[in-house]
Amino acid sequence: MASIVTLTTDFGVEDGYVGAMKGVILSRAPTVTLVDITHAVPRHDIAAAANALADAAPCFPPGTIHLAVVDPGVGGARTPVVVVAAGQLFVGPDNGLFELAAPQPEAAFAIAEPAFRREPVSTTFHGRDVFAPAAARLALGAAAETAGPPVALAGRLGLARGNRVVHVDRFGNLVTDIAGVPPGARVRIAGQVIAGVGETYESVATGALCAYVGSRGTLEIAVREGSAAEMLGAGRGTAVEVELP
Amino acid sequence: MASIVTLTTDFGVEDGYVGAMKGVILSRAPTVTLVDITHAVPRHDIAAAANALADAAPCFPPGTIHLAVVDPGVGGARTPVVVVAAGQLFVGPDNGLFELAAPQPEAAFAIAEPAFRREPVSTTFHGRDVFAPAAARLALGAAAETAGPPVALAGRLGLARGNRVVHVDRFGNLVTDIAGVPPGARVRIAGQVIAGVGETYESVATGALCAYVGSRGTLEIAVREGSAAEMLGAGRGTAVEVELP
Amino acid sequence: MASIVTLTTDFGVEDGYVGAMKGVILSRAPTVTLVDITHAVPRHDIAAAANALADAAPCFPPGTIHLAVVDPGVGGARTPVVVVAAGQLFVGPDNGLFELAAPQPEAAFAIAEPAFRREPVSTTFHGRDVFAPAAARLALGAAAETAGPPVALAGRLGLARGNRVVHVDRFGNLVTDIAGVPPGARVRIAGQVIAGVGETYESVATGALCAYVGSRGTLEIAVREGSAAEMLGAGRGTAVEVELP
Repeated sequence: MASIVTLTTDFGVEDGYVGAMKGVILSRAPTVTLVDITHAVPRHDIAAAANALADAAPCFPPGTIHLAVVDPGVGGARTPVVVVAAGQLFVGPDNGLFELAAPQPEAAFAIAEPAFRREPVSTTFHGRDVFAPAAARLALGAAAETAGPPVALAGRLGLARGNRVVHVDRFGNLVTDIAGVPPGARVRIAGQVIAGVGETYESVATGALCAYVGSRGTLEIAVREGSAAEMLGAGRGTAVEVELP
Repeated sequence: MASIVTLTTDFGVEDGYVGAMKGVILSRAPTVTLVDITHAVPRHDIAAAANALADAAPCFPPGTIHLAVVDPGVGGARTPVVVVAAGQLFVGPDNGLFELAAPQPEAAFAIAEPAFRREPVSTTFHGRDVFAPAAARLALGAAAETAGPPVALAGRLGLARGNRVVHVDRFGNLVTDIAGVPPGARVRIAGQVIAGVGETYESVATGALCAYVGSRGTLEIAVREGSAAEMLGAGRGTAVEVELP
Repeated sequence: MASIVTLTTDFGVEDGYVGAMKGVILSRAPTVTLVDITHAVPRHDIAAAANALADAAPCFPPGTIHLAVVDPGVGGARTPVVVVAAGQLFVGPDNGLFELAAPQPEAAFAIAEPAFRREPVSTTFHGRDVFAPAAARLALGAAAETAGPPVALAGRLGLARGNRVVHVDRFGNLVTDIAGVPPGARVRIAGQVIAGVGETYESVATGALCAYVGSRGTLEIAVREGSAAEMLGAGRGTAVEVELP
């Protein structure tokens, strides 16, 4: 069966860079199914990419290869890695990109072997010359440990965690890292109180704040037909308190 | 042969939500060919999505499954449906999304059976938990009538129709619902008169208004190298008069 | 093995136009692998599309069909063509689109035969009615010379070339057409001097100018974590001088 390779970058869609990566993959692994997660990550915003992967990766089947390139350190000292977690593979720079989608990695390997690279490797476009060929090699069935020596992941997101907003989606919805919130809990954020965790946008009036358990299974705060991020002046890192009912 | 599933949403491409839907589909129907129509529908603009589908769907082969999620009522009372029309299947909320692409549906069924859902169904992301699994199930060959009981479609676009602009594309071209306009007809819109329906942009000067039969087979009004919507202050619903030559 | 068809347009992703093209291709050549290069080319900016193709096309395998539609002259006199170059095929209007990706075409043929078109051909949407069906026909194995009579390509980009900026990417990086620049060369652009061509963004401070050999193999000028285009007021056509070390 054809492997799936997903792609997540901050390259945008105006240039030919994403196409170049796909060409490299298809040149080496012609039967791969390519799936874009997003290329609209704000430049160098590793946490935004990590959040997109956290929402998407768990929906893919075992064996899926998630290729992600948000890489402010390209050409520098950070290690290109293959991370093994939950039956899937994650390919990209070791900078925290996979911290949310693969919080408990089983193993990680440096991408070092020539068969996992496209020579000569440029100093500015490892997406094309390192990460795409590595993903293709894995899609062809190579084991992760053949990429290079095992490494301990060193990159960290540095994201404030624990009763925090960890993601603002494009609707301005605030995604927190608070799981297990029961219906009826009271939520405090940015000086506002939301009286009870409800179930749907439809349960409040247009323009009103609501809180509910979102699609990630954690507490989310939204404004019906509006932006909670704007209304509350809140963003990634904003503290959230939950009082049980 | 692999089924085709197209996707149309207002989710944008910044987040992992579209990727999550694709992961669910590929997990269940690995050989599907996925095709994005658009994810740049303005939030909750059902008519914009309906117009994109109206342009794209007729170009796809019989058996294609068109999945569309612009769903202000998610978690509320609207019914998730499979619509059968012109040899294709349309999967989404019953809110008018398919009114332009499938004006004469042959049948519609509620999506109710567990095999067409991903449990537990969240209250906020039916794209992932209802519509994607339903599309996958259909792609695997399930008959539409196995999704649930037949329903009469209740959702309406509420779009002004009949000698109207029904769509403004991103170039500012005004797409009307007026078919069968002969060459040389005179067009009145927003206080302006366009002397004769021509054939190509090239037949008028840069910056001038022109009218022609567009790619949908209906009258369109455009400005060469400019925006007719801006020049005329026109938009969806603007009245258009045609005088035969 | 399935053919690859890439797509490059200025249609944007808001409307159903790209979807319509893909539907036409998949209706005729169901096993094709479709790859978007970009649909975010600024309207009618042929050179931007040519640059995206120049970055992406060389990464694709032999036999790939590159379909590109940036076509201010649609419905006018320019010829729809198939260009054969470096083992790949390029399908689009003869207006310079392929000048950078296929600088030395081996042959070119007009798209004239009915089997390469979708009748009736509209006057405004040759992407759907001419270029997509032509690409599908080629993907099915038809030889380029069966599309129509050989033609001499007449379209030109009219891009200033020779020690010039030829492309500004979305990061504001300036891509030049100057190849073979050795490390340590001195670069002059827009009244500024960059002391030595280095290797990575990381070799300069945040906000500083740097010059390096980019992923295309030519000199590029960038600002670490910033936009060289903005800082220098430079753009396509800006002259660049290189002094060898």
